Amino acid sequence: MYEQKKEQTLRQKRVQQSIITLQADACIITSPVNQYWLCGFIFDGYLLLYPEGEALLFVRRPVGIPDERVTEIRKPEQIPSLLRSAGLPLPRRLLLEADQLTFSNATRLQAALEMTELVSISGELRRLRAVKSAYELKQIRESARVHQQVYELIPSLYRKGMTDMELQIEIERQMRLHGSVGIFRSFGENMDIFMGSMLAGDNAQTASPFDYALGGGGISPLLPLGANGTKLLPGMTLMVDMAGNYRPWMDDMSRTFVIEEAPDIAWEAHQLSIDIARVIEQSTRAGTPCASLCLLAEEMVQERGLQPYFMGTSQQAKFIGHGVGLEINEPPVLTPRSKEILETGMAIAVEPKFVLPGIGAVGIENSYIVQADALEKITLCEEGMIVL
Amino acid sequence: MYEQKKEQTLRQKRVQQSIITLQADACIITSPVNQYWLCGFIFDGYLLLYPEGEALLFVRRPVGIPDERVTEIRKPEQIPSLLRSAGLPLPRRLLLEADQLTFSNATRLQAALEMTELVSISGELRRLRAVKSAYELKQIRESARVHQQVYELIPSLYRKGMTDMELQIEIERQMRLHGSVGIFRSFGENMDIFMGSMLAGDNAQTASPFDYALGGGGISPLLPLGANGTKLLPGMTLMVDMAGNYRPWMDDMSRTFVIEEAPDIAWEAHQLSIDIARVIEQSTRAGTPCASLCLLAEEMVQERGLQPYFMGTSQQAKFIGHGVGLEINEPPVLTPRSKEILETGMAIAVEPKFVLPGIGAVGIENSYIVQADALEKITLCEEGMIVL
Repeated sequence: MYEQKKEQTLRQKRVQQSIITLQADACIITSPVNQYWLCGFIFDGYLLLYPEGEALLFVRRPVGIPDERVTEIRKPEQIPSLLRSAGLPLPRRLLLEADQLTFSNATRLQAALEMTELVSISGELRRLRAVKSAYELKQIRESARVHQQVYELIPSLYRKGMTDMELQIEIERQMRLHGSVGIFRSFGENMDIFMGSMLAGDNAQTASPFDYALGGGGISPLLPLGANGTKLLPGMTLMVDMAGNYRPWMDDMSRTFVIEEAPDIAWEAHQLSIDIARVIEQSTRAGTPCASLCLLAEEMVQERGLQPYFMGTSQQAKFIGHGVGLEINEPPVLTPRSKEILETGMAIAVEPKFVLPGIGAVGIENSYIVQADALEKITLCEEGMIVL
Repeated sequence: MYEQKKEQTLRQKRVQQSIITLQADACIITSPVNQYWLCGFIFDGYLLLYPEGEALLFVRRPVGIPDERVTEIRKPEQIPSLLRSAGLPLPRRLLLEADQLTFSNATRLQAALEMTELVSISGELRRLRAVKSAYELKQIRESARVHQQVYELIPSLYRKGMTDMELQIEIERQMRLHGSVGIFRSFGENMDIFMGSMLAGDNAQTASPFDYALGGGGISPLLPLGANGTKLLPGMTLMVDMAGNYRPWMDDMSRTFVIEEAPDIAWEAHQLSIDIARVIEQSTRAGTPCASLCLLAEEMVQERGLQPYFMGTSQQAKFIGHGVGLEINEPPVLTPRSKEILETGMAIAVEPKFVLPGIGAVGIENSYIVQADALEKITLCEEGMIVL
């Protein structure tokens, strides 16, 4: 508890430094993820931070939070007079989470606070959150350990004749029994998902509206992603990319299974994914440009002529990895054109995957912590394809 | 398929009538729920509707949708020149989903389309969706039937010594095996949830940041709602309010279970909830004001002196029901101050519930379809408390 409090104070100071750098008067935090990051709990209301001093929490719900920073309010229009009676200045240039707040709520807040200028702090907060503390990295490692325990149960959950969805349901149950909170949080408006993704056979080729590495058709038009009820048949591969949300800070991991047997090309492409991971691990550390991981992978894929199957077929993802943390898609994004540089304390998932027509998806995804002189792999499951 | 196409055309015409009434030039739909409602699938992009003619779909992802209304784009800035080359006017006064679009995306769209005026269509679309077609109501009835099948399994899933969460996990598994898509959609920024809520004992008193009828502490600070690992002990009640998302159009239903035995007050308050449901059923039809359902319930609660426990204790919900459909919280909301009138074809959930300190939550929730001369109850599970 004391450790968490200390963490929150440090994070708050980092945001206060950003307020100064961005020449703003204050910032208001409304998204659940950033509220949790800054004060350890979620509420319906407004976390107001000046460049100095403690945060002020204006809370609609829940009632009765035992925290002296809390003022209970009914609506944001009450905030200006509360600030005035506390002798605090009304901020003119205010930072808001413009990538998370709806247009309606942002403009209501702007009017309520008589703001002259509204600037987004969404991207800056994501950059701050991308570099993790020792406490946060410990959580990601712990999550990866539970993630591994659940994946190791998969062969025992499989029954001949199952569909991808039937197997996924048994994995979901094990995830929950191992402490998964169920929902997992992602950034952006095109990231619907339910507990992860399982892709068997040609369902792996189905293009999806969402910005995940691979697609899949899903079982409902309301969630066109992942398992679609494909019966698991000999010769197919099954890519398991279920969530690692066993702590507030998450890991990400994919493994591939073979139903009885698979053609040589599946084994070859899967081995290439492992080889890419090994080369990336050997050549990456703090200071490595994110783009270079992609270029390295693409070069190895081209040498083997497997570009048409890399990261999808008709629709190919434009990244081979991403940061992980409180959200599953944190910065940095590993794209060939990225200008970002890896920093000590970042946590990233690297997922060089192939989609093979008539067979399915193959490849692995591991999570890593960026160290000064190395990448620390934290997802330690068997990487070879496992025959079911 | 033909029926769905016909439905979509009718919905489109209703929106086009709203465009004319709101004196706008066009509207752009970006939210998954409203995209699905209007064209039957979800995509990353923009559905543009003029007051007349077919919708235009500008799609970033997925690639290759076999639909002649689709134009593939990379970014919204391409839309103006695409409209010009199709000989279409650039809308000046445009309706956007301001309650769903983020501030960043709304202002980007405004700049990209050189819009002079941006007006919200979010509320209007919710009002249109509140009155369901025969096709949509059939889906809600079907969902309620599956919901009932799953709830009837609950006594067989219970084992002595279980926690609320352990029982919930077995119910979740049955929900998935019965076709639940997993995620369920809600409107607004304070509606996080995972598959529903189970409240046992005094966890039912815990105030939550979210706008659901009851609260609960949850198992993670990232999702403070619902089951919290309470061991199910004799004398407790367990309120089960798990999702009815077995079709795109959903129902909503709660039932209460008793662990071995419960004090008389629990049976009395639960019977009052049933009595309130009966009186509401007898006095409600199209034309009934939403407020009158609440006033009726409050009067019956006051007569029995149970106000301190109605809809919570320290934090009490200000509604006793809500519309259901593609989202779990559609209009109308049943509040004492509502000015809304029930219309034929609306689907509503009514949930008069009590939270009893030292015991738990009791009461029922049913879903109804509003008919011209009656309420049609569609959630047909046993209503009395069931002893586990």
